[in-house]
Amino acid sequence: MIKIGIIGAGRIAQVHARSVSAHPDATLVVISDPIEQAAASLAARYGARFTVSADDVLSDPEVDAVIICSPTPFHPEQILAAVKAGKPVLCEKPVAMDIETVDQLEKDLEGLNPVVMIGFNRRFDPSFQKIHELAANGTVGKVEQVTIISRDPAAPPVEYIASSGGIFKDMTIHDFDTARYFLGDVVSVVAIGQNLDPALKDSGDFDGAIVTLANAEGATATITNSRHCASGYDQRLEVFGDRATVNADNVRPTTVRVSTSDLTDAQDPYLDFFLARYEQAYTNELSEFLSAIAEGREPSPTIEDGRKALIIAEAAEKSARTGTIITL
Amino acid sequence: MIKIGIIGAGRIAQVHARSVSAHPDATLVVISDPIEQAAASLAARYGARFTVSADDVLSDPEVDAVIICSPTPFHPEQILAAVKAGKPVLCEKPVAMDIETVDQLEKDLEGLNPVVMIGFNRRFDPSFQKIHELAANGTVGKVEQVTIISRDPAAPPVEYIASSGGIFKDMTIHDFDTARYFLGDVVSVVAIGQNLDPALKDSGDFDGAIVTLANAEGATATITNSRHCASGYDQRLEVFGDRATVNADNVRPTTVRVSTSDLTDAQDPYLDFFLARYEQAYTNELSEFLSAIAEGREPSPTIEDGRKALIIAEAAEKSARTGTIITL
Amino acid sequence: MIKIGIIGAGRIAQVHARSVSAHPDATLVVISDPIEQAAASLAARYGARFTVSADDVLSDPEVDAVIICSPTPFHPEQILAAVKAGKPVLCEKPVAMDIETVDQLEKDLEGLNPVVMIGFNRRFDPSFQKIHELAANGTVGKVEQVTIISRDPAAPPVEYIASSGGIFKDMTIHDFDTARYFLGDVVSVVAIGQNLDPALKDSGDFDGAIVTLANAEGATATITNSRHCASGYDQRLEVFGDRATVNADNVRPTTVRVSTSDLTDAQDPYLDFFLARYEQAYTNELSEFLSAIAEGREPSPTIEDGRKALIIAEAAEKSARTGTIITL
Amino acid sequence: MIKIGIIGAGRIAQVHARSVSAHPDATLVVISDPIEQAAASLAARYGARFTVSADDVLSDPEVDAVIICSPTPFHPEQILAAVKAGKPVLCEKPVAMDIETVDQLEKDLEGLNPVVMIGFNRRFDPSFQKIHELAANGTVGKVEQVTIISRDPAAPPVEYIASSGGIFKDMTIHDFDTARYFLGDVVSVVAIGQNLDPALKDSGDFDGAIVTLANAEGATATITNSRHCASGYDQRLEVFGDRATVNADNVRPTTVRVSTSDLTDAQDPYLDFFLARYEQAYTNELSEFLSAIAEGREPSPTIEDGRKALIIAEAAEKSARTGTIITL
Repeated sequence: MIKIGIIGAGRIAQVHARSVSAHPDATLVVISDPIEQAAASLAARYGARFTVSADDVLSDPEVDAVIICSPTPFHPEQILAAVKAGKPVLCEKPVAMDIETVDQLEKDLEGLNPVVMIGFNRRFDPSFQKIHELAANGTVGKVEQVTIISRDPAAPPVEYIASSGGIFKDMTIHDFDTARYFLGDVVSVVAIGQNLDPALKDSGDFDGAIVTLANAEGATATITNSRHCASGYDQRLEVFGDRATVNADNVRPTTVRVSTSDLTDAQDPYLDFFLARYEQAYTNELSEFLSAIAEGREPSPTIEDGRKALIIAEAAEKSARTGTIITL
Repeated sequence: MIKIGIIGAGRIAQVHARSVSAHPDATLVVISDPIEQAAASLAARYGARFTVSADDVLSDPEVDAVIICSPTPFHPEQILAAVKAGKPVLCEKPVAMDIETVDQLEKDLEGLNPVVMIGFNRRFDPSFQKIHELAANGTVGKVEQVTIISRDPAAPPVEYIASSGGIFKDMTIHDFDTARYFLGDVVSVVAIGQNLDPALKDSGDFDGAIVTLANAEGATATITNSRHCASGYDQRLEVFGDRATVNADNVRPTTVRVSTSDLTDAQDPYLDFFLARYEQAYTNELSEFLSAIAEGREPSPTIEDGRKALIIAEAAEKSARTGTIITL
Repeated sequence: MIKIGIIGAGRIAQVHARSVSAHPDATLVVISDPIEQAAASLAARYGARFTVSADDVLSDPEVDAVIICSPTPFHPEQILAAVKAGKPVLCEKPVAMDIETVDQLEKDLEGLNPVVMIGFNRRFDPSFQKIHELAANGTVGKVEQVTIISRDPAAPPVEYIASSGGIFKDMTIHDFDTARYFLGDVVSVVAIGQNLDPALKDSGDFDGAIVTLANAEGATATITNSRHCASGYDQRLEVFGDRATVNADNVRPTTVRVSTSDLTDAQDPYLDFFLARYEQAYTNELSEFLSAIAEGREPSPTIEDGRKALIIAEAAEKSARTGTIITL
Repeated sequence: MIKIGIIGAGRIAQVHARSVSAHPDATLVVISDPIEQAAASLAARYGARFTVSADDVLSDPEVDAVIICSPTPFHPEQILAAVKAGKPVLCEKPVAMDIETVDQLEKDLEGLNPVVMIGFNRRFDPSFQKIHELAANGTVGKVEQVTIISRDPAAPPVEYIASSGGIFKDMTIHDFDTARYFLGDVVSVVAIGQNLDPALKDSGDFDGAIVTLANAEGATATITNSRHCASGYDQRLEVFGDRATVNADNVRPTTVRVSTSDLTDAQDPYLDFFLARYEQAYTNELSEFLSAIAEGREPSPTIEDGRKALIIAEAAEKSARTGTIITL
């Protein structure tokens, strides 16, 4: 039984709290949040202690491992503190707001034998994992073109967008990691930004994007993003190889199809939103974290994976702003 | 080039006229119908001659082969006359209104080397044919349970029903032949009749039916019929074998799927109605007829297939009326 | 928090133990099984007590409610004892091996204000529930034809079959309840039994069946069963109404589709077997049981539902054995 | 009845010859090809005359309209000659090998009241047309992101590629027109070229490409091309609007699905290749051409549409060669 402390009590912390509680190999012992009521309420739901101080969690002798769900600017210092306290860390993405900070963190962690996993949960989605397996076992053949469609059902508030670091670091970052999951490191990035939603015109950010990445072998990944999607949370993946084409579709709560005089085999709306769509992915992600701890090995994806996704995000931003193709 | 005469100028005759005209190995030369204008109009469309007399077609020296699309009561005498005139016949189903008449016809044809094909067009549907092939080549394994769903979009007029011979001879007859296509001869029949549509209550006929057939090896076919179907012309087939389950779905004019906030991947209505749904089947049926003539062999399905479907239809009617299982 | 005792530690008890443990409104306190090691091992997994005596569970003052997962012959006496002890009961199907025993049980329970739910879990499958909702809210219109396909991936051992009460009480019983979920009470039953698997020839039982039920309004339910299915655990439902046709498909672990030169959009095998396929149904069933307790109302489905499914099962057996249609 | 002459007797000429012969409003009267046997053989199949000279067709007094299926370099002069002879023209794409030639052609045609249609057949695919209709009637809302997947089953011979004008003019040109069908004129083009197939390494051409186009409103079209595709002729379209997402899938010869222990609902290979996949599109294209002639209006798409697709193709080539985003 690995005893877990969670830093943060927001939306994503709630997901992790539930996963930990339901997991046969973990127990939730303490939750921190500067908003005391948030920490208290979440802790109560799972019979855990609470505190307003992240440091309390990091120094808690009962805590075996830490899940960091704080705002991004706090990630580097909390990762470092946890590692210094000898506690394995699962940290939500992105690692930091910029590359320089990640570089500094990696330098700071040198020699400390850090056990740090970054929360790119989509790698653990059962369908994406299955496709990865089909690529690894030769079914797909040489991977040549990856197509990722990733659209949110509705845009977050303008204030959120303002402090989000931009669509590429906030939203596409997941897709950059998915692209790297199949292509490995990429060498070129070109992004077209879109301003589709009039309500977001003044946000200073794009609300749609088409990004094409290529690796050194010339294989590509094409990412289509939108902050809104009338048909719901649209999350699809296609991997085209020289032996097969494989697809992962959206996920629905039931298999029901309705046929009337107007439309046939109409299906349910997709699971809405990432908490439901990726519920199993979060559980699988936690299992990987716990297994790595139990087996004394480094979990994956790593800080370096987080850093590389961030490099692509910055390149995409630059490409979209300057109208150029960026070579990494 | 085989020169074809068509007896009848109604709905199904129009289908055959089009198929013949478009076929590379056939030409349409003459059409007869007691309603002169119907014959004239259809003949004009394809540059053929017309007449009000079926006998004219049967005795026409230019006519190589005959397609009979007259009302069912005329089928036996016209088949016999065509055979006596040395002309191969493709006759629409059913062969006759009752078994006794078919028995007499078979007796009359003895020794005349008849070349007669009965128009069970569904055997020639590309999907049903493909399933038959998968059953024949071992993919399906031993066929154990056949499930046929067959629903018309809307009921015909009450007058049509009154003279139709009843749902089993008029509508289910196709499904009985499909069942035999996969099971061979059947030994037991049980039918449950339904009166679903209040508008048809006084027709004296059922407008829905569930029929279960079994062959001597214990394999079954279950047929679900309805004279109406809100979602359109519903024509599906499943064959369950000990190695695979295979299905043929409904057919749509496009592959378009629409996803909105209410419904996802909603598809087009099905092709409506049998003329569109089975257009390719009619063409393939004609090809079989022409090939059999060219190769001097007996086409399939035969009068005997028509007779056996009729025997099942009569047994189904008796089963539904008496509440008993009928052994053949 | 409702404290639960479970009688039995077999396969289905393990499902309930997991559901109870994971449920926010319930705690598992004790498990009984005559095989001590089975009880001990399952209890240990969830931190519960164990005993070899069902009576210990029934008389346990800490136990608020009981889930009965013992062999069918023990159901009636254990239900009665639980009710007398003032404990609500969720009992696995079937209620008993024969109608007489259920009649006696109902008589014995008179005046005792029994709170008894029968575990027809499929009513709680999200897709079947959604279809029920679409029937209830008018989307489907008047229900006219229900089609249930229900096939197990592989037959149980011959010894299991010998003591199972026969396919209709053991396997089809679920489908009879599903039929009643949509049709209400049925008035006629006709069943065709099949002996498909040579290995089961001597079991004295059918290993395939086609059953057609009809209610007083003439609506039908057609059930197709097989003890084996090459393509896995095949569980589908179609409800045809005068306004729409609705379908529930099989369930897969991922949404992955593979396209190669031979086959396109080939999907994963179905979830195998009922523990996985109906996992969510078991959870929803438990929620209904707990809600009914909390709200002081009778849960559904009831013993009477269990009794009516059993009546249909006996009629189906009689129909298949005698080749007659049975009127209830 | 419009009398048609066809210039060319190659693969695409054969498609048009068949369409014309089967069309109720057209007759095929003459076919020309420098290879006399090709012209003779195709003409014989449809009872038409033949010649080795295109000029014979263009000056034939019996010919009402001309379909040009010659190699691309001959298109401009033959279009001009036909227009001067007062004959409407349906010319295969592309109009010419370069923009300058098209510009000159447009200048030469000024004042001649040309009736010229360019054979971008995909606009007439029933599924793409349906999506266009859904975009036009408001179902889709504002079109924001178009995704086109277009892969050939296998690469043509290296010699063909050498004289093809390159992948963007030869293959992607269709997709550029499809993009314009939904987006109108585009203002930016970025293309990533791929060399995936070792056998084509020395062709000097790309055999895979990702192209992103944007129009003045910021709506995008993303095109994914490959000269090979293990799963067959892969032709899909998605249009994402602010009210709906609509998709057109690949087309199969049957609706059969096969489920075994390994894979479920595996479907047929797609229709292979453009002659089969777009058969209906060629027929619909011909109907538009004939209707425009009959109604005395300009058919669509026009030379100008052909010119604009060519401009995009040249920009894509330049973008892929130079690693820059091209503004039009």
